[in-house]
Amino acid sequence: MNSLSSLTRTLNRPLAGPLDRIRIVLSHTSHPGNIGAAARAMKTMGLTRLYLVNPKFFPDPEADARASGASDILAQAVICRTLEEALGSTVLAAGMSARRRDLGLPFRWAREGAAELVRGESRGEVALVFGNESSGLSNEELSLCQLPIMIPANPGYSSLNLGAAVQLMCYELRLAAAAPGSAPASELPLASAEEIEGFYGHLEKSALASGFLDPAQPKRLMLRFRRLFARTGLEREEVSILRGLLASFEKQKIRRKS
Amino acid sequence: MNSLSSLTRTLNRPLAGPLDRIRIVLSHTSHPGNIGAAARAMKTMGLTRLYLVNPKFFPDPEADARASGASDILAQAVICRTLEEALGSTVLAAGMSARRRDLGLPFRWAREGAAELVRGESRGEVALVFGNESSGLSNEELSLCQLPIMIPANPGYSSLNLGAAVQLMCYELRLAAAAPGSAPASELPLASAEEIEGFYGHLEKSALASGFLDPAQPKRLMLRFRRLFARTGLEREEVSILRGLLASFEKQKIRRKS
Repeated sequence: MNSLSSLTRTLNRPLAGPLDRIRIVLSHTSHPGNIGAAARAMKTMGLTRLYLVNPKFFPDPEADARASGASDILAQAVICRTLEEALGSTVLAAGMSARRRDLGLPFRWAREGAAELVRGESRGEVALVFGNESSGLSNEELSLCQLPIMIPANPGYSSLNLGAAVQLMCYELRLAAAAPGSAPASELPLASAEEIEGFYGHLEKSALASGFLDPAQPKRLMLRFRRLFARTGLEREEVSILRGLLASFEKQKIRRKS
Repeated sequence: MNSLSSLTRTLNRPLAGPLDRIRIVLSHTSHPGNIGAAARAMKTMGLTRLYLVNPKFFPDPEADARASGASDILAQAVICRTLEEALGSTVLAAGMSARRRDLGLPFRWAREGAAELVRGESRGEVALVFGNESSGLSNEELSLCQLPIMIPANPGYSSLNLGAAVQLMCYELRLAAAAPGSAPASELPLASAEEIEGFYGHLEKSALASGFLDPAQPKRLMLRFRRLFARTGLEREEVSILRGLLASFEKQKIRRKS
């Protein structure tokens, strides 16, 4: 009934195009074997762009051994010092989390999150970020991502090996890219990570100047704002409008001063 | 919009019942580390019944190390001399294959195959069989299975690590057993239409007062704001925060006036 047919041609075609603007970012990986396993997992699903933020050991013979036939992915890996650097010029970043976070964004399950990343990919570079093996992504790292993703797992033991988690997500990305999928919500260009961070910086400065933020504790409310705006997928023009509004509030203050 | 809710409860519930008649069978495994990785992968997805057909090394410290917190799965593993023995009294056996076989049965893709196994499980014991790391299942071994399953992969490099393949299939089995419904809704109360309109009114008033909106044509930019915030699904508390920020900008103006 279900044999080699049109579905085969769809699922087993190269799919280079739809997947090659997706970065797999591994942050602060402790075990080089997991970097190799991630490279192999990526290649089996047709992903190629590996970013490593501050790996403990890399390059490393253990990474090469576990990469098996995917040493080309390791050779092309981009090494970054910070997660910000690895996310440079992305329009959407998703971060893996094994647990719910306070004040976190609403998360997506793996399948749904992969589909959302693939939709975002039609509008620019996107990234999927995996944290350290023992502690996962820090809250600060996760706050740089607009889309937290969780893998549904056994609540009694939800600790997936890093390479296995990369395999699973790359598989979902491949399936999402192969699926016809729905049209993106808008064709307007999304804001880049830098533009969005610029907006948050501007908002924090204005809100501090107006007395809205407690200068001793600006972070808590800023996290709420990040959570709110991360859900929208801010467009470039929207960031300009928001910053224009903030500037008009600031000018109004200066006008009154003079 | 997508948060911990009924879907969470569905996907993260123990699921012991539906999954505990599924055997994961590893045939002629060469590397004990892969047996440990498979045990860990199984446990993260709530599967417990591991069968090992003629493993090259088992038990083995490398298997224990890679199993991490899933050593209980290794301790309960059933060691068999033949695949026939491991499939004893099953009503359905699926076998993984990385390639099409001549004269093979029609295969299923991973997702569909997992669903079929879970359906079979309602009628008795079922098994999912993984072959040796380098050669996969032999044609003879595959002939003992009624359901060949393939993982959609990069045709140029389809060689998944054994532990990663087990992870992926156990994930599909878990999802098939949970048969999740529609997307989860947020636990935090959403703002009502009235609250949202109140916010837009407040925003328009502040933006006019600051000179950001053209008083002759306030509508155009207000439509952009509506479009932006409509995508977020504003929560009640977020509306309060946003109106608090607007109020602080207004107060700042009054302070300067007086």
